Amino acid sequence: MEFASPLLTDLYQLNMIQVYLDHADTETAVFEMFVRTLPPRRGFLLAAGLEQALDYLENLRFSAAEIAWLQGTGRFRANLIDYLADLRFTGDVHAMPEGTAFFANEPILRLTAPLPQAQLVESRLINILHFQTLIASKAARSVLAAPNKLLVDFGFRRAHGAEAGLMAARASYIAGFAGTATVLAGRQFGIPLFGTMAHSFIEAFDDETQAFETFARLRPDNVVLLLDTYDTEAAARKVVALAPRLKAAGIAIRGVRLDSGDLVALSKSVRAILDQGGLEGTTIFASGGLDEDQLREFAKAGAPIDGLGIGTDMTTSSDVPSIDCVYKLQDYAGMPRRKRSEKKATWPGRKQVWRQYDADGRMAGDLLSLADHQKSGEPLIHPVMLGGRRLQPVPSLDDIRRRAKRELECLPGPLRELTPGATYPVEVGDDLIRLAADVDRRMQSRVQDSDYDSHGGSDHAR
Amino acid sequence: MEFASPLLTDLYQLNMIQVYLDHADTETAVFEMFVRTLPPRRGFLLAAGLEQALDYLENLRFSAAEIAWLQGTGRFRANLIDYLADLRFTGDVHAMPEGTAFFANEPILRLTAPLPQAQLVESRLINILHFQTLIASKAARSVLAAPNKLLVDFGFRRAHGAEAGLMAARASYIAGFAGTATVLAGRQFGIPLFGTMAHSFIEAFDDETQAFETFARLRPDNVVLLLDTYDTEAAARKVVALAPRLKAAGIAIRGVRLDSGDLVALSKSVRAILDQGGLEGTTIFASGGLDEDQLREFAKAGAPIDGLGIGTDMTTSSDVPSIDCVYKLQDYAGMPRRKRSEKKATWPGRKQVWRQYDADGRMAGDLLSLADHQKSGEPLIHPVMLGGRRLQPVPSLDDIRRRAKRELECLPGPLRELTPGATYPVEVGDDLIRLAADVDRRMQSRVQDSDYDSHGGSDHAR
Repeated sequence: MEFASPLLTDLYQLNMIQVYLDHADTETAVFEMFVRTLPPRRGFLLAAGLEQALDYLENLRFSAAEIAWLQGTGRFRANLIDYLADLRFTGDVHAMPEGTAFFANEPILRLTAPLPQAQLVESRLINILHFQTLIASKAARSVLAAPNKLLVDFGFRRAHGAEAGLMAARASYIAGFAGTATVLAGRQFGIPLFGTMAHSFIEAFDDETQAFETFARLRPDNVVLLLDTYDTEAAARKVVALAPRLKAAGIAIRGVRLDSGDLVALSKSVRAILDQGGLEGTTIFASGGLDEDQLREFAKAGAPIDGLGIGTDMTTSSDVPSIDCVYKLQDYAGMPRRKRSEKKATWPGRKQVWRQYDADGRMAGDLLSLADHQKSGEPLIHPVMLGGRRLQPVPSLDDIRRRAKRELECLPGPLRELTPGATYPVEVGDDLIRLAADVDRRMQSRVQDSDYDSHGGSDHAR
Repeated sequence: MEFASPLLTDLYQLNMIQVYLDHADTETAVFEMFVRTLPPRRGFLLAAGLEQALDYLENLRFSAAEIAWLQGTGRFRANLIDYLADLRFTGDVHAMPEGTAFFANEPILRLTAPLPQAQLVESRLINILHFQTLIASKAARSVLAAPNKLLVDFGFRRAHGAEAGLMAARASYIAGFAGTATVLAGRQFGIPLFGTMAHSFIEAFDDETQAFETFARLRPDNVVLLLDTYDTEAAARKVVALAPRLKAAGIAIRGVRLDSGDLVALSKSVRAILDQGGLEGTTIFASGGLDEDQLREFAKAGAPIDGLGIGTDMTTSSDVPSIDCVYKLQDYAGMPRRKRSEKKATWPGRKQVWRQYDADGRMAGDLLSLADHQKSGEPLIHPVMLGGRRLQPVPSLDDIRRRAKRELECLPGPLRELTPGATYPVEVGDDLIRLAADVDRRMQSRVQDSDYDSHGGSDHAR
């Protein structure tokens, strides 16, 4: 993986690690990653990005040049520099498999490691898991809105950088897209590739029919002609006129693409022109600023569209460009911890999510409990890395995609139908509620007892 | 730069290039990149990302492994494989300097190169320039909303991937941010770094005062204490109680940070607690889901906040997560071209933007003309790469930042004040209007003349 630098972190992590080393605070910490609240337009989320997160942890190391640079900043003492120079990730990871549907407050990843390691990796772990989860969750909406349509990721160019474009191809494929236009995603992940021609191709010829014919003769295996450079219906008639000449050469026009205008009306008129011209087998592919809301309108309007290129809206998750995904300390040195900031309080301790299903196999509700308390239902969180090494077998991308498909099928009706405001029941177990109260009492008694004075800190000053 | 692979492109580019090579369509093409329409919440945009775009072009080459993979797909003929194996970018680039304010329809980059080269690089060029321009334009709004405040990029973790996080640090620094929390951005671009502690640091101690004191004694040069882990005002009182002990050790509490709750009310009460405790010199830094609208509210409410960490909202440009940035063919083989798709028509030919200023030095209006027609005003587009080599000197990041500062100062009042709906006059020159009409007439006559038949394409079939 590119962008593996451990300097992809926030400066405060290094400052805190310096203090932890100086203060001998290097005991085991447990952090969990979860989403605090679901955005209004997301009834569920789809976990994605674990593969890249584990890659990052497994390969975590500072290069000699990075260590020299850190030293050169003058910010850090020799003990930190030495610590980082030798650093490998030695912790454990428990996680929900990629492709799992999840909800607010449910951990998708738990990391157990010496505090400095757990702190260093926070920023990049969130960065990896947040983005792919964001995009898989967004792409799943198009998949649900347009079942049985061919959906293709067209969104590399306006994704937020190279990694975003590449990982959006992966995340949308997990969610059920048929493939992507991004060539590197084909090479890196084996995702099927789609794409034929742009408007500039048509414009590079003085004559539109000549452009169509040249393309068809030179790329005869996959002839999809772009109709809207000048006049969509006129172009459809040119396609009909051209078809017999191509047929004589053994070339079929597999499809046409519409990229602008009123796509419902144009798909109907183009379908009629193609059908009247004997091109019933030529499919219609639509693109151009599409999102799941439009896909539902196309379905309602009976637009004869067979496939859709979904671009910027999906790769930027434009209606919800971020989710409130956090990574919080749950336990340190054997003591459960929690944050009580206004509207940001967390449940302490290592947790498990237990999923209930109804008689039809539909998801019926989740229970959040402490990890070591056995409850009924399917546990969603499993060990995936122990002592810094990934557990085998690692699921393939197609395994993950199949899991996501099953998850989407098992969603309750209102979530499948993207009904605004639809919710899903997540119960917080009594054990967690009791533990939170215990932690609060412990902190409270510390505050009341507190005779903490200069003595408390004096032996750490240097 | 990482992510330099030329496979960061759309499949249709390779399919078109295959046809161009087979059909001997490799003459000079001129493409321009511009934004079709400004989003409602953007009165102006700030160009950014040119440095990375030119890096990409200058270093464009396929590795042996990439060539072998392309060959192995079975999609392409030997002439394309050979062409790509030897490919270097040999074209010219003209562009607006980074940090320039610009508007709809104004090219920020013009690329002149053999058609296959110009086509191959489209996807990644847009990907690079779109994102940094998006973020510089977003970050500029915070800079204008909070003049004289210290603004810091805190948004790596929820940026869309590693490259997005890194380039958002660069783009926001260009727009006037003081620095970033992202360590790699410090190393790669020399951007000043900021950051002290997280909530997990406080939680790793059983006592909040102990956490504060330990940090202060071990990181005495930059003591900024995070107050909102449990109770913000109580924490401020602990800071006041701790201060004399630290002062005795020669340590000053430089600042405190508030990350949740009602930041206006808390900044006032915390300021009062600090002042009453003799800590008038301790600054207040705020963070937590901030955007430019809140910054304006803070200013209106007189919140005593000295610095702000701006995160997800800026690095995802959350209100406008993409802009309608396109790269369009303007001229091929010496003939001007244009697209006439509904709502997506373009102005043909190589263009220049001429900027007028009023007597006070404020921007008064732009004129869009053909590049070879001298007009009055400041021309904004300049050569930056000739024959595939960058022209020297390359502006430094601080040069670019100074330019952006001047541009923001020169914006008309309503744009500086982020007045919703404020617009800026961009006139389309008569020469362009005439040329567009000429192109349309030429295309029209081609359509009428068109006796194009099998003859037109037959010699290209193979």
